[in-house]
Amino acid sequence: MPKSRIEAFSDGVFAIVITLLVLEFKVPSFAGPIEEQAFLAALLAQLPLLLSCIVSFVVIAVIWVAHHQFLHSLRQADWLLLWLNNLLLLFIVFIPIPTWMIGAYPSLKTPALSYGLLLALSGLSFAAMRYYASYVADLVDLGPQQRRRAMTASIVGPALYAVGALVAWPAPRLALAIYALVPLVYFLRPPGGRRAR
Amino acid sequence: MPKSRIEAFSDGVFAIVITLLVLEFKVPSFAGPIEEQAFLAALLAQLPLLLSCIVSFVVIAVIWVAHHQFLHSLRQADWLLLWLNNLLLLFIVFIPIPTWMIGAYPSLKTPALSYGLLLALSGLSFAAMRYYASYVADLVDLGPQQRRRAMTASIVGPALYAVGALVAWPAPRLALAIYALVPLVYFLRPPGGRRAR
Amino acid sequence: MPKSRIEAFSDGVFAIVITLLVLEFKVPSFAGPIEEQAFLAALLAQLPLLLSCIVSFVVIAVIWVAHHQFLHSLRQADWLLLWLNNLLLLFIVFIPIPTWMIGAYPSLKTPALSYGLLLALSGLSFAAMRYYASYVADLVDLGPQQRRRAMTASIVGPALYAVGALVAWPAPRLALAIYALVPLVYFLRPPGGRRAR
Amino acid sequence: MPKSRIEAFSDGVFAIVITLLVLEFKVPSFAGPIEEQAFLAALLAQLPLLLSCIVSFVVIAVIWVAHHQFLHSLRQADWLLLWLNNLLLLFIVFIPIPTWMIGAYPSLKTPALSYGLLLALSGLSFAAMRYYASYVADLVDLGPQQRRRAMTASIVGPALYAVGALVAWPAPRLALAIYALVPLVYFLRPPGGRRAR
Repeated sequence: MPKSRIEAFSDGVFAIVITLLVLEFKVPSFAGPIEEQAFLAALLAQLPLLLSCIVSFVVIAVIWVAHHQFLHSLRQADWLLLWLNNLLLLFIVFIPIPTWMIGAYPSLKTPALSYGLLLALSGLSFAAMRYYASYVADLVDLGPQQRRRAMTASIVGPALYAVGALVAWPAPRLALAIYALVPLVYFLRPPGGRRAR
Repeated sequence: MPKSRIEAFSDGVFAIVITLLVLEFKVPSFAGPIEEQAFLAALLAQLPLLLSCIVSFVVIAVIWVAHHQFLHSLRQADWLLLWLNNLLLLFIVFIPIPTWMIGAYPSLKTPALSYGLLLALSGLSFAAMRYYASYVADLVDLGPQQRRRAMTASIVGPALYAVGALVAWPAPRLALAIYALVPLVYFLRPPGGRRAR
Repeated sequence: MPKSRIEAFSDGVFAIVITLLVLEFKVPSFAGPIEEQAFLAALLAQLPLLLSCIVSFVVIAVIWVAHHQFLHSLRQADWLLLWLNNLLLLFIVFIPIPTWMIGAYPSLKTPALSYGLLLALSGLSFAAMRYYASYVADLVDLGPQQRRRAMTASIVGPALYAVGALVAWPAPRLALAIYALVPLVYFLRPPGGRRAR
Repeated sequence: MPKSRIEAFSDGVFAIVITLLVLEFKVPSFAGPIEEQAFLAALLAQLPLLLSCIVSFVVIAVIWVAHHQFLHSLRQADWLLLWLNNLLLLFIVFIPIPTWMIGAYPSLKTPALSYGLLLALSGLSFAAMRYYASYVADLVDLGPQQRRRAMTASIVGPALYAVGALVAWPAPRLALAIYALVPLVYFLRPPGGRRAR
C-alpha cells in the first residue's frame, strides 16, 4: 500500500482544519446607527478568539510538520497504520470546537478542560501510530536511537496537555498558559529533529 | 485517461466532507450571566451530535479506504467510470446533512430513514462503479476470485443500510444501532482485504 | 512553467465548491414540541434546494471533467493561461450563491437570471482559455480538427446559459428547465470527446 | 526535506481560503411576502461585499502565483523555511475576515485599517521567506540579479499596503482604492517575471 494517498488525504484534512479556524470570527452587526467606536469595541471583544485561533493554528502546524517528517521516514504503510492515522485525523478535525469555546469564554473551566483532553488524545494517537510503525510493524527507515528519541518527544506533548487538562478545573487560565507554551517546546525541539539546518 | 486527477479530486472531496462534519457544533451562548453549569449542560446536550459525527467520520473513512484500494487496483479510468465516481461523490457530500439531523433529533424517524437511504445509495453507486470496472470494461488488475470477493463485500454495506432504512420507521433507535455497527463489519472485513498485514 | 500546480490548485477549488454546495441545508428547528410531521414538512420544503444543488453539482462536475481533459491536452502553461484559469475559478467559486437563491426562491426572476449570467461567464472564460491555448499561444497537443471541435463545444454551453438568462425575466421556470438540461448536453457530447469508450 | 508536501499543503490552504470568501453572501430572507423588487434590492445591497471579495480573490491569486514561482525556484526546503511558510499561511487564512468587514461597512475606518495591516504582514512574511531562501540559507536556483529583482518586487507590495493602512484612518475610501490597485501592479510586474511569454 503506497503512502502517497495517505499524505494527500491527511494534507487535505490539515489544510482545511487550519483554514476553518477563522470562520468563527463575526463581522460586528448593529441594530442602530453604525459607529466607528462601537465597531472597534465589538472587534476588540474578539481578541481572546484571535489568540486561541493563533495558538491552535500553531498547534496544527506543529502536528502537520511532525506528520510530514514521520511519513517521510516511513518505508511503506499498512492497513492498521492507515487506521491509526484516521484516528489521529478524527481528533484533529475537532480542534476548532474547543478553540472557539475558549475564544468565547476564556475564564470558564469546561472549554479549557476540553481543549487539553482533545489535544492529549491527538498526541496519544500520534504516539500510538509512531510506536506501531517503529516497534510493532517495523515500517520506518530510522536507526534504534532515532526511533527512541522520536518516541520520547512524541510522549512529551500529550503529557503536557494532560497536565493542562488536570489544571483546567482549579485554574483554567493556567491551563491556557500551558497550552500556549506547548507548541513552543515542539518548535524548539521537534520530534524528528530540525533537519537541514 | 490517467487516474491521478480522479484520485486528487476524490481525496479533496473526502477530506473536506470529513472535516465539515464538525461545523454543526455550536459554542453555547447565553443571554444572562455565564455559568459553568449551564455551559457544561449546553455542551452535554450536543452529545448525540458528537456520536453521530464520529459514526459518519468512520463511515466516510471506511469508504475512503475502500476507494483508495479500488483505485489502486485500477489499471486505467474511462469516461463512464469517471461519472460513476462523480455519482458516488454526489452522495458522499450529502452525508453531513442527515448526520446533523440525527444529532439534533435522535428519536425522530425521518433523520434515521434519510441516513440509511443516503448511505445505501452511496454503497450502491460504489458497487456499480466496481461492477463496471470489474465485469463490463475490464479496467482492474485483479483475478476472477478477487473480483468476486470484492463485489460481494461491496453489496453487504448497502444491503445493511437498506435494512436500517426499512427499520427506521417503526424503530429509529434500532436503525441508529445498525448504522453504528456497519463500519465495524467493514473494519473487520474490508472489501479489498487487509493488505500488508 | 509546469502545469501540475495549476491542476492541484484547480482540483482543490473544484472539490471545495462542490462540497460547500450542501452547506445551505438547514436542520429544521422547532420552538414548540418536536413532531415527526412538522420535521418531515420542514425537510420537504427544502426539496427545491436539493434539486438546485444536484444540478449545480453536475454542472461543476462537467466543468471539472472538461478542465481535466483540457489540461491533459496541454503541453505546458504560461503566465496568461494561469490567469485565464484564475478568472474561470473566480466564477466557479460564486456558483453556490445563485444555486442557494434558486433553492430558496425558485419562482423569482433575479435568482434565475443571476445563475444563467454566472454560468455564461464561467463558460466564456473557459472558452477564452481554450482559444488562447489553441490559437494564440499554441500550447495544446491537438490536431486542427480536434481544436475546432473542442472550441465549438466550448461555445455551446455559455450560449445556452445566455439564452436561459434572457428567458429568466419573462419566464424564470423555463430558464431553470434550460439550466437543468445543459449539463445533459455536455454529458452526451463532451468537448474533449468520451475518450477510452 | 522535499518541497512537494509544502506545495500540497499550501495549495490546499490557498484553494480553501479563496473559495471560503464567498460564504459571507446571504440569500435574502423575508418576513412578509416575497417580492422581486425587495429581493433585488437586498441583493444589490451586497454589491460592496462582491467587490471586496473579488479584490481579495485577485490578491490571494497573486500571492498564490508568486508562491508557485518561488517554490519552483527553490532547490530544497529546510526547517526554518517551512515555518516561515506557515507564518505566511497564518496571515493568508485571516484574509476573509477584513474582506467581509469592508464588504459590510465600506465607509468605516477600522475594516480598511485591518485589511491593510493584514496584507502588509502577509507581504512582509513572504519577503522574509524569500530573503531567507535567497541570502541566508541559499536554497534557490537563481542568479544574483534575479534574486535582487524578486526581492525588490517583494517589498513593493507590503509597502503599498502599509501606506493604505496609514491612509485608512483619515480616508478609508482612499485606502480601499489603493488596495484595489495593488494587485494590478503585481499583475503587470510579477516578482518572478512573466515567464513563458
